[in-house]
Amino acid sequence: MRVGKSHYRSIWVSGEPPVIQVIDQRKLPFEFQVMELSSLEEACFAIREMVVRGAPLIGVTAAYGLVLAARGSGEGNWQEEIRRAGDQLCATRPTAVNLKHAVDLGLSLAEGLGARNECIRGLQTWAGRFAEEEVQRSKSIGENGLSLLSGIYQRKKDTVQVLTHCNAGWLACVDYGTATAPIYLAHDAGIPLHVWVDETRPRNQGARLTAFELGEHGVPHTVIADNAGGYLMQQGKVDLVLVGSDRTSRNGDVVNKIGTYQKALAAMDNHVPFYVALPSSTIDLEMQHGSETRIEYRDGDEVRLLEGWDPEQKKFRKLQLVPELSGAENPGFDVTPARLVSGLITEKGICAASEDGILSLFGGSEV
Amino acid sequence: MRVGKSHYRSIWVSGEPPVIQVIDQRKLPFEFQVMELSSLEEACFAIREMVVRGAPLIGVTAAYGLVLAARGSGEGNWQEEIRRAGDQLCATRPTAVNLKHAVDLGLSLAEGLGARNECIRGLQTWAGRFAEEEVQRSKSIGENGLSLLSGIYQRKKDTVQVLTHCNAGWLACVDYGTATAPIYLAHDAGIPLHVWVDETRPRNQGARLTAFELGEHGVPHTVIADNAGGYLMQQGKVDLVLVGSDRTSRNGDVVNKIGTYQKALAAMDNHVPFYVALPSSTIDLEMQHGSETRIEYRDGDEVRLLEGWDPEQKKFRKLQLVPELSGAENPGFDVTPARLVSGLITEKGICAASEDGILSLFGGSEV
Repeated sequence: MRVGKSHYRSIWVSGEPPVIQVIDQRKLPFEFQVMELSSLEEACFAIREMVVRGAPLIGVTAAYGLVLAARGSGEGNWQEEIRRAGDQLCATRPTAVNLKHAVDLGLSLAEGLGARNECIRGLQTWAGRFAEEEVQRSKSIGENGLSLLSGIYQRKKDTVQVLTHCNAGWLACVDYGTATAPIYLAHDAGIPLHVWVDETRPRNQGARLTAFELGEHGVPHTVIADNAGGYLMQQGKVDLVLVGSDRTSRNGDVVNKIGTYQKALAAMDNHVPFYVALPSSTIDLEMQHGSETRIEYRDGDEVRLLEGWDPEQKKFRKLQLVPELSGAENPGFDVTPARLVSGLITEKGICAASEDGILSLFGGSEV
Repeated sequence: MRVGKSHYRSIWVSGEPPVIQVIDQRKLPFEFQVMELSSLEEACFAIREMVVRGAPLIGVTAAYGLVLAARGSGEGNWQEEIRRAGDQLCATRPTAVNLKHAVDLGLSLAEGLGARNECIRGLQTWAGRFAEEEVQRSKSIGENGLSLLSGIYQRKKDTVQVLTHCNAGWLACVDYGTATAPIYLAHDAGIPLHVWVDETRPRNQGARLTAFELGEHGVPHTVIADNAGGYLMQQGKVDLVLVGSDRTSRNGDVVNKIGTYQKALAAMDNHVPFYVALPSSTIDLEMQHGSETRIEYRDGDEVRLLEGWDPEQKKFRKLQLVPELSGAENPGFDVTPARLVSGLITEKGICAASEDGILSLFGGSEV
């Protein structure tokens, strides 16, 4: 999507020999810098140090990491070197499922190729296609969700008010994003809309990343404290809640960033539709209910310390918020029961948040 | 309540001639300093600069401010000087109702007294009584709420888990607080309890003040992001939600810090009792529904900037959180409908959050 006057993806290839380019997300939204990745080590650094973040983007970066490993390998033991590169990449963010998935795909491709040069070319083509598929999935989610926004606009004939939580945006993907994809397509189609952006404590992905994305693409938006969304709904100021999902169980429960559940409750109480945008890769048919998810508890210091941008030193700094002796607990996700979800927006269409709904789009093997 | 090994109130008198002492709340929870107020000007400074905050404490500080004005007045025109002092005090926080109420009481008393010395003594006695009444009201709220906590403990025979939002604590009152009063009394009575403290963005009163209060008094507690409460209730980790109220309408709707409504929704969805502790002075029988309240919108910079403690510079600093060009909206309060409130804990007892409930305790003139 747009940054300033240019169109960007979160990762792209340029030059000859081709170099991988990524946006350094560590300094967003306060500094916009592109970083070149020209070796496996640099790709590992980018994932480990969160130059890139977001499950789909991590997967694509790992795919390109394998390309860089192949290019940097010696004539003799290139196959062994690529295998080791896969291990190295997987170790950068051990819990990232997309990362492991991308590495497995790339390694199995490489194993079938007999010559080093053939392998480099093969991985390169594959990585490009892998990224492109990610973009197409996001775009399809956007097209499917667009109907909801245009429907509200046709009925209301006034600015469509959307509320979103966390960052399910193009920065986490390659382009378009998931929850943001319908928003970008609607905005580009001339539908007037405005987005309430939940700050999303404790890591503030909404205030930092979603606000940046929307602002750069020209989408009107306003940042609010996570406490405020329920009140705005009471006031009739929200037409639609649109969020992403980290995992969706067979019955339609949605595991997503902590605080999503509270927004779903407020939406239900105020008759505001609550939709979840997600690629089918996040649907887990093996899991019957969302409550079976083991929720990640993150470091309490994310709550105890505030991280913000120091404009003088041009870097993020941490300040103390909580008394020295007070502890903090920091669950990273919660489970929104299917009964609170109006529908799931996927790359294949919109379905009910239920087993029947999910199976109507993804009957078995597609997921 | 306790700070370290000593018992403190948020305001007290010591020495001869008596000097007013307050805790400088601007540096809490990171530095604990007592400030002496020995003139009207110092009392005005303390209120205006938020050395003291919280409606009940502001009222009591203003009462003592009149005492200081009387003491500092000249023999000739002391009556005129005290009247002017009242205006000065009211101008420090123009929207604080308790402040105006306290000043009006003090001035009408002063008008009835013929001699300067008599007036000084009269105001001094009155101010002390005024503070004492505030303490007694909080203590009565605590005693009435204690039954709820002890009831849960008797049933559960394990640590009682309370969740609170914002700071309805002794620092905002003179002692005990409102929502915290039952907690302190239960803790002192040996009932094992643990408090989940909502951070309370954007001003973080929970993370800063409630956590400080509870920690110093020895009450086990854990700070959480405002997003986390719903999840903890899903997990069965909350037995009772206990919050304060800025205004309660005739039908039992509760106007309180932004985010209270979302917690009430989560409590209802998980069958967790949701109680509101309040002095009767916050019940507004003239207002039929909470939705009639004009909600204060505060400066968006409270959302756009993060305020935290810089341990090196030993002061609060602000860091940027939101992109330069993104706006923020900052409603300060929301309305929790009476249907979500299990009951109101007042100094006169617990009643249903309904007109009948409120009138059963406060039948007309008492409010």
